[in-house]
Amino acid sequence: MSYELYYWPTIQGRGEFVRLALEEAGADYIDVARESEGLAVMLRLMDHADHPPFAPPFLKDGDTIIGQTAAILLYLGARHDLAPKDPAGGLWTHQIQLTITDFIAEAHDTHHPVAASLYYEDQKAEALRRSAEFRKNRIPKFLDWFETILARNPASDAQLVGNRLTYVDLSLFQMVEGLSYAFPKAMKRVLKDVPRVAALHEAVARRPRMKAYLASPRRIPFNEEGIFRHYPELDS
Amino acid sequence: MSYELYYWPTIQGRGEFVRLALEEAGADYIDVARESEGLAVMLRLMDHADHPPFAPPFLKDGDTIIGQTAAILLYLGARHDLAPKDPAGGLWTHQIQLTITDFIAEAHDTHHPVAASLYYEDQKAEALRRSAEFRKNRIPKFLDWFETILARNPASDAQLVGNRLTYVDLSLFQMVEGLSYAFPKAMKRVLKDVPRVAALHEAVARRPRMKAYLASPRRIPFNEEGIFRHYPELDS
Repeated sequence: MSYELYYWPTIQGRGEFVRLALEEAGADYIDVARESEGLAVMLRLMDHADHPPFAPPFLKDGDTIIGQTAAILLYLGARHDLAPKDPAGGLWTHQIQLTITDFIAEAHDTHHPVAASLYYEDQKAEALRRSAEFRKNRIPKFLDWFETILARNPASDAQLVGNRLTYVDLSLFQMVEGLSYAFPKAMKRVLKDVPRVAALHEAVARRPRMKAYLASPRRIPFNEEGIFRHYPELDS
Repeated sequence: MSYELYYWPTIQGRGEFVRLALEEAGADYIDVARESEGLAVMLRLMDHADHPPFAPPFLKDGDTIIGQTAAILLYLGARHDLAPKDPAGGLWTHQIQLTITDFIAEAHDTHHPVAASLYYEDQKAEALRRSAEFRKNRIPKFLDWFETILARNPASDAQLVGNRLTYVDLSLFQMVEGLSYAFPKAMKRVLKDVPRVAALHEAVARRPRMKAYLASPRRIPFNEEGIFRHYPELDS
């Protein structure tokens, strides 16, 4: 049976981290809300499921519904050989993903520092301040941490965990891709200081399934409704 | 061997969610950074561990270091009977905790909407706007979600998962406790609409080990350096 992925149909957003894992695994899945009437199905499930997700994305596998991006990846990683089999390795991989979760939330809040329910234009002054801080302190702090993990990985400094691809490599690729879209000037500078992160980003993009996916219509282009938005005034 | 918990020594913060689980489990643990020289040990571990945590709290169990509050609770829950044994139940419990993680981050950002590195006083204008939104929309949205989960739990509407205490019940207790400290006026209103959440909060406080812990010097009082801060101007 196919997995059913539920996420907002017009943005990459948090759903993209799940899409990348499904695509790299070669898993059968339906991106339900992008099908006709799919959005209504998604909203109905959120309202009526026994285990209602707080927000998309969520994954349906038969009768099981799993919400929270990092929990979905924990589930998929174990089933599709995208994480180590041993419990300690699996938990370390998950811990890295949870730190990516924090990074994603901070990236989102650069353009919505007051309220997700308000327009960007109504919180632009706050966004300017928060983005300056994010560019100057937070992007370097997070990317340095990933660089350190790569440097300390005894098996390979080309992967975050062990010597094979895991789902966190895909998620770090997406972070770099998204931040480079949103903050091209800042990222050009920062990436010079984290060569292993930059190399991992390039290597993931070259993987056959990733290359095919990124060139396909299944990959929604970045836009100014998602998490990673390019507002030139927020970059410098 | 005792667990070693590492967290900032003067605040409840995210470490408190771990402390509550350790206390309810009756587990042996050392709150390392509160011991003499312990803070230096913590900072050294963060700098030099093979698997460096991005930030405290982290837990050391023998040679294993686990960072990220929700990952620590996933680990402890399985070992101390504070989560269901079946994989689907365990993942659902974890998913609830990850939503609490999101809620905690939003609570923190009410007083630090621009930058954790700046003083509250330097982002007070932004904090006023963000707190108004948090009080009006976000607290009710999150607490309604927990109320719904309790109402839909077929085993008991007194626990979030199954018919026995799990670590997410303890975490929800702490959220209500912290929000009631930070936003007493707003919470007094909101709690009337979520009677099951309010009852769960009271029931956790009455558990013998919780009662003993909360009255002990191990419980650090709330203060204006933690996640939950009482700034009267942010409540109404």
